[in-house]
Amino acid sequence: MPTRFLSAALAAALVTATSPVLAQSQAPDAVTGTELSTAHLPAIVMPYSNFASPEARALAGRLMHEPPFVFGDDVARARAHYGRYNDDRLAEVRALYATRDERQTLGGVPVDVVLPTQGVSERNADRVLINVHGGAWMWGSGSGALVEAIPIAAVGRIKVVAIDYRLAPEHRYPAASEDVAAVYRELLKTYRPENIGLYGCSAGGVVVAQATAWFQTHNLPVPGAIGTFCGTGSGYGGDSVFLGQATTGGTAPPPAAAERIGIPNPYMEGVPLDNPEAYPATDDAVIARFPPTLLLAGGRDFAASTLTTMHRRLAAVGVKSDLYLFDGLWHAFFVWPDLPESKEAYGLIARFFDLNLGAARPASVSGS
Amino acid sequence: MPTRFLSAALAAALVTATSPVLAQSQAPDAVTGTELSTAHLPAIVMPYSNFASPEARALAGRLMHEPPFVFGDDVARARAHYGRYNDDRLAEVRALYATRDERQTLGGVPVDVVLPTQGVSERNADRVLINVHGGAWMWGSGSGALVEAIPIAAVGRIKVVAIDYRLAPEHRYPAASEDVAAVYRELLKTYRPENIGLYGCSAGGVVVAQATAWFQTHNLPVPGAIGTFCGTGSGYGGDSVFLGQATTGGTAPPPAAAERIGIPNPYMEGVPLDNPEAYPATDDAVIARFPPTLLLAGGRDFAASTLTTMHRRLAAVGVKSDLYLFDGLWHAFFVWPDLPESKEAYGLIARFFDLNLGAARPASVSGS
Repeated sequence: MPTRFLSAALAAALVTATSPVLAQSQAPDAVTGTELSTAHLPAIVMPYSNFASPEARALAGRLMHEPPFVFGDDVARARAHYGRYNDDRLAEVRALYATRDERQTLGGVPVDVVLPTQGVSERNADRVLINVHGGAWMWGSGSGALVEAIPIAAVGRIKVVAIDYRLAPEHRYPAASEDVAAVYRELLKTYRPENIGLYGCSAGGVVVAQATAWFQTHNLPVPGAIGTFCGTGSGYGGDSVFLGQATTGGTAPPPAAAERIGIPNPYMEGVPLDNPEAYPATDDAVIARFPPTLLLAGGRDFAASTLTTMHRRLAAVGVKSDLYLFDGLWHAFFVWPDLPESKEAYGLIARFFDLNLGAARPASVSGS
Repeated sequence: MPTRFLSAALAAALVTATSPVLAQSQAPDAVTGTELSTAHLPAIVMPYSNFASPEARALAGRLMHEPPFVFGDDVARARAHYGRYNDDRLAEVRALYATRDERQTLGGVPVDVVLPTQGVSERNADRVLINVHGGAWMWGSGSGALVEAIPIAAVGRIKVVAIDYRLAPEHRYPAASEDVAAVYRELLKTYRPENIGLYGCSAGGVVVAQATAWFQTHNLPVPGAIGTFCGTGSGYGGDSVFLGQATTGGTAPPPAAAERIGIPNPYMEGVPLDNPEAYPATDDAVIARFPPTLLLAGGRDFAASTLTTMHRRLAAVGVKSDLYLFDGLWHAFFVWPDLPESKEAYGLIARFFDLNLGAARPASVSGS
C-alpha cells in the first residue's frame, strides 16, 4: 500500500488491486474506455494551491518527495513505522497544547482521558467528546490517538476520551462499533446523551458514523453531535479517489476503482454493502436519525467526494450538517499541528461541538 | 475561449493566455517547475463519478465530446451562440416549471419579474429574491436569466426579479453592482431588507458578492441572505482551476495560472485586486457584514476551490454559510433542469432562503 500523504496516524487503507472487495465490485463492461463520460486527463503540471498557506506548501513539497512506505502484509512493520511517525507528531502537538492524559478502562475498553491543563470550561463541565482514532483500522493506538485528542481538548477546553478500540486484521467489523458502544454506554452513566459528541478521522471518521448507526439498533440514545473527518459512513468513491491520489504524488487507481462502493480494507472484508450499520449512507432512515454532523477534509483527500456526497444526503433527509474543505490539503492533514489550516480545523471542530452539544447544566447544580 | 462544460447561460470567462490581467499576475520565478510542491500529474483515465446520477453521466458524456466553441473577440457571435443555447434550456425549464414572467423596469433597470403559477406561498408573501444571471459578464440576458429564475420561483413559490444588468465589454465594473443596487433600492420601498435575498451563478455569483459589499458603502442595508454559486466574492484560483478544466474535457491552464488571484475577464480589467467592493474576500471587515450565504457548485467546477475557500473565510469571521458540492458535476450544471442534481440544487436554494430570510408578516396584515 503506497502511503504518500496518507498521514500515518489516520490513514485509511486505500487498497487497490489486491482488495477482494474491490475485485468483487469491478464491472468490466462499465470501464471499457469507450464510455463517453470517461475523462482522459492529459499529464498536468499543477503548482500548489494558491489558496493554501506557505506552511502547507512547504510541507506538501516535502511529503510529496518522501519515498512511499509499502508494507504489504507485514502489519507489525507498519505499526512500528507509523508508531514512530505518530510519536513525532505527538511531540509537536504536546509542544503546542497543554493537556494531561490518563490511561483508564471504560466499559472494559482501554481509553486515554485527556483534560486541558487550563481546566474544562464552565460551558463544558457536563460535556464530553469521544475520539475514535484513524490508522486504517490497523494502527494509530496510543500516540496516534493522542495526536487527535489533545488539540481538541485544549482548544475546546473540554474532556476528550480517546478509545483504544480493537484493530484489524486480528479483529474485524463490528469490533470497533462494539468498543465505541461500550464506552458510550459507560459515559451515559454520567453524561446526558445530548452532551456527548463523537469525532474521528479517516478510519475513525468511518467508525464514528458506523457507531452512530449501531447505537440505533442497540438500545442506545442519539448522541448530541458527531464529526466524521476524512472518512464517513459511506464507501469511498467519486472523483477524489482519482484526483486525491494523483495530486499528492500517489498513483491514480485503475479505472475500475470508479465502480467501488465499499471500503476496501481487511476490517471491512466480507461485510455486505447494503448493511446500514456498516454503510449508513445506504439507508436514509438510518442517517435521518443522525445528530448534527460536521464533515471536514483536505481538498486533495481521496475521501473528499465521499464527504461532499454524505453532506448532501444528510441535507436531503433533513439532518443539519456542515462541510469544510481545505483547498490543497491532503488526507488527515491536521495531524500536523503547526499548519495554520490545522489550527483552523481545531477551531472549527471545537466551535461545532460547542454550538451543537446540549447546554451545560446551570453552574449551581453542576457537579460531575 | 474554450467553453467545454462552461454552460452558456452562466459561464464565467476563464480566459487564459490572452488575458492581460493574468499576464500581469504571472510570477515566473514561482513556476519554474523546480518548486517541490508542484504536482506532476500523469495522464489519467478517469471514469465518471459513481456518486453522480446516470442522467448526469449521460449528459457529461455528450458535452465532453461536443466541439468547443471559440469566439475570440467576436462578442456578437458569442451572444448569438449562447442565446440559442439558452433558448433551448429555457424550453426545457418551461416544460417542467410553471411560472409567468413580465418585463418591467425597476430603478431604471430592465428586469424580468417571475411569479409561480401556483401563486406565492403565504410564508413568502413579503419576500422577494433577486437573480443576477451568469454569462461571463458578456451574455445571458433574457433566456439565460429566465433559466435561472424560473425553477427557483416555482420550487420556492416565491417572486424572483431577474436583473438585466449592463454587460461587458461595452460596460465595465462596477456597472453590474450599480444596477443591482438600483433594483435593490427600489425593492426596499416595498420589502424589508431582511426579506430580500440575492442569488446568482458564475459571473452572477461574483456580482451578488460584489453587490453585497457595494451596499455597505452606498447607504444600503444588509439583505436577508445571499447565494453565490459557481463564483463568489473572490478571485478564481486553487486546485479546481486545474482539475475542473482537465476533468471536463478542457485544457488545463498553464502553471502560471496558479498565481492568479483576480478574475481575468474584460469586465474586471484594471480593477485593483485589493478593492474590497470588487474582491470582498480580501477584506475580513467587509465579509464579516455579509448575511447568511449559500455556496454551491459542481465538484468539477473550476470555481469549486474558490467557493470552499470563501466558505472557510466566512466561517472565520463568524458568518453563517452553507457549502454544497456535487461530485462529478460541472460549472453551472443546474441550467440543465432534467438532472436529478439540478432538482436537488433548486430544493437546497429554496430551502436556504426559506430558512434565512426574515419571517413573513402575519397573514392578517399581509397585503403586498
